[in-house]
Amino acid sequence: MQDQKYFGQDRSSLTGFAINPLNRLSERRHEQPFIDTLIAAPTTRTVIFSGETPVLRQNGNEYGAYFTFAEAHEIGSAGEVAFLGLDGEDALFATLIEEETPENSQARGDIARVDLRSIATQGLVSVPVIGALAQAKSLLYWHKRHRFCANCGTLTLVSSAGWKRDCPQCQAAHFPRTDPVVIMLVQQAEHCLLGRQPIFPAGLYSCLAGFLESGETIENAVRREVFEEAGLPIGKVEYFASQPWPFPASLMIGCMAEALDDRVTVDGLELEDARWFSREEVKQMLDKTHPLHFSAPPKLAIANLLISSWASNEWR
Amino acid sequence: MQDQKYFGQDRSSLTGFAINPLNRLSERRHEQPFIDTLIAAPTTRTVIFSGETPVLRQNGNEYGAYFTFAEAHEIGSAGEVAFLGLDGEDALFATLIEEETPENSQARGDIARVDLRSIATQGLVSVPVIGALAQAKSLLYWHKRHRFCANCGTLTLVSSAGWKRDCPQCQAAHFPRTDPVVIMLVQQAEHCLLGRQPIFPAGLYSCLAGFLESGETIENAVRREVFEEAGLPIGKVEYFASQPWPFPASLMIGCMAEALDDRVTVDGLELEDARWFSREEVKQMLDKTHPLHFSAPPKLAIANLLISSWASNEWR
Repeated sequence: MQDQKYFGQDRSSLTGFAINPLNRLSERRHEQPFIDTLIAAPTTRTVIFSGETPVLRQNGNEYGAYFTFAEAHEIGSAGEVAFLGLDGEDALFATLIEEETPENSQARGDIARVDLRSIATQGLVSVPVIGALAQAKSLLYWHKRHRFCANCGTLTLVSSAGWKRDCPQCQAAHFPRTDPVVIMLVQQAEHCLLGRQPIFPAGLYSCLAGFLESGETIENAVRREVFEEAGLPIGKVEYFASQPWPFPASLMIGCMAEALDDRVTVDGLELEDARWFSREEVKQMLDKTHPLHFSAPPKLAIANLLISSWASNEWR
Repeated sequence: MQDQKYFGQDRSSLTGFAINPLNRLSERRHEQPFIDTLIAAPTTRTVIFSGETPVLRQNGNEYGAYFTFAEAHEIGSAGEVAFLGLDGEDALFATLIEEETPENSQARGDIARVDLRSIATQGLVSVPVIGALAQAKSLLYWHKRHRFCANCGTLTLVSSAGWKRDCPQCQAAHFPRTDPVVIMLVQQAEHCLLGRQPIFPAGLYSCLAGFLESGETIENAVRREVFEEAGLPIGKVEYFASQPWPFPASLMIGCMAEALDDRVTVDGLELEDARWFSREEVKQMLDKTHPLHFSAPPKLAIANLLISSWASNEWR
């Protein structure tokens, strides 16, 4: 990719999992001899997922995510393998292994299974490697959950270096799935609306969000979700930033939205509470100094960027 | 929805298929007694798809897309049925029928099967009904092609008023699919880049576009696609507008993109040609007065909005 000097120059690059400088060479994935050559090259590496969890190499406090294919086979029986892209000159793949056998997981003392959220929050590997792990996680999850043809029920075969599955029965071609989600900071005068889902940790408030549906624009998906969850009519909607969100495979589309009214009616289903917050309160929530111990989402989430940008009035 | 006065106030509402004022009541889809009541109501109507093609009622030059369920059963054996939303006070559903039997299709002289692109281009039904047909088309296509569990191959069962399929074997829940696509007008100084795919009609040039992949932001998907298809490095990317595109189920995410270079290298695979055009030339292409008979996409496509907004310099 030629865009590396632009990393950090758009808002989306400030979100978690956004930095990924791999050259995906998507136009060459179908060239099997080319992919075979990459697989055989001595400098080629793979990241490994055991189910949905990344496998890391651990040496004290140092972690690594790159393995040889030989190491991957030692750790577990390999399932799907996908080409992620070139990291500089060297190819990087992703390998899905079935749950490790106890013997394998005990055989090496330098292997740790760590969930991707913790890897990112604690910065266990470098930012571009976190991006590659996010790419791998969504892609491998799709394989793990889409081995059969949705059109006819037959077991499908992997092709295009792990970016396609073909049905040998009905010939249907299946591609990895990315689900667009709208996530929005609703504003009215000098306040913003944040809500709580029942599953949130105590005191945490975040932006409203929901899956975009068939037949919707981004702006109308924002309006529908806010109206359904909080009973508020929305006027102007502005795109703000986007983020790949690998839990399991979403594209978060972050927007700023203007409410035409301030009478909130919580649906009680998706949200258990939603209320208006001032800039001052939001800053306390971000700093974890709020007198009622309210808090905002961590930096990993695009909600943090939306909320902090609004709080500091830096978003226009 | 409370947002009707905002229709036409964001750019996305200027794209084809974007206007859809149905109140989807997505939070009530799982309430089967509520849905049953709607189905039984005398004012309830359904749109009908025969495979991927809308079925219309025709009376001379007048067309309609709303039928009773009794009429739907007359026209063909009903497959999946989905709740689209409330049109004012009345419920609107979508019904998928298997290919009509010759007897059925000949039994009524007032029935026409017309593809959605033609319906929209010719304005055969009102703009909001075109939006509802687009919503129905993507949703019913998903049912038609996803009847089996991708996780285990078992035939799944429809639930949530047609917005979910459940696997009775492995308990997996499956939801309708919407594929995000980036489509971008690449600019450099006073020119924009348009390209030709081999399948395009002679003389037609359009924006570059491609599916957003696992682990990408919108901006980086734009950069990757332009670099892969035309060899151009891209700096700044700005979101412009979005569009539901029901062929079969995409979300088109329209962006303006600044090229850092003007040396185009066409990949020859996805594009057979790509070149720079001036505003004057683009206006001729939109007006169909270009001396070489080059043309731009029709108003239905978001590419037309991107190109015409740039040509008239009205996009900031």
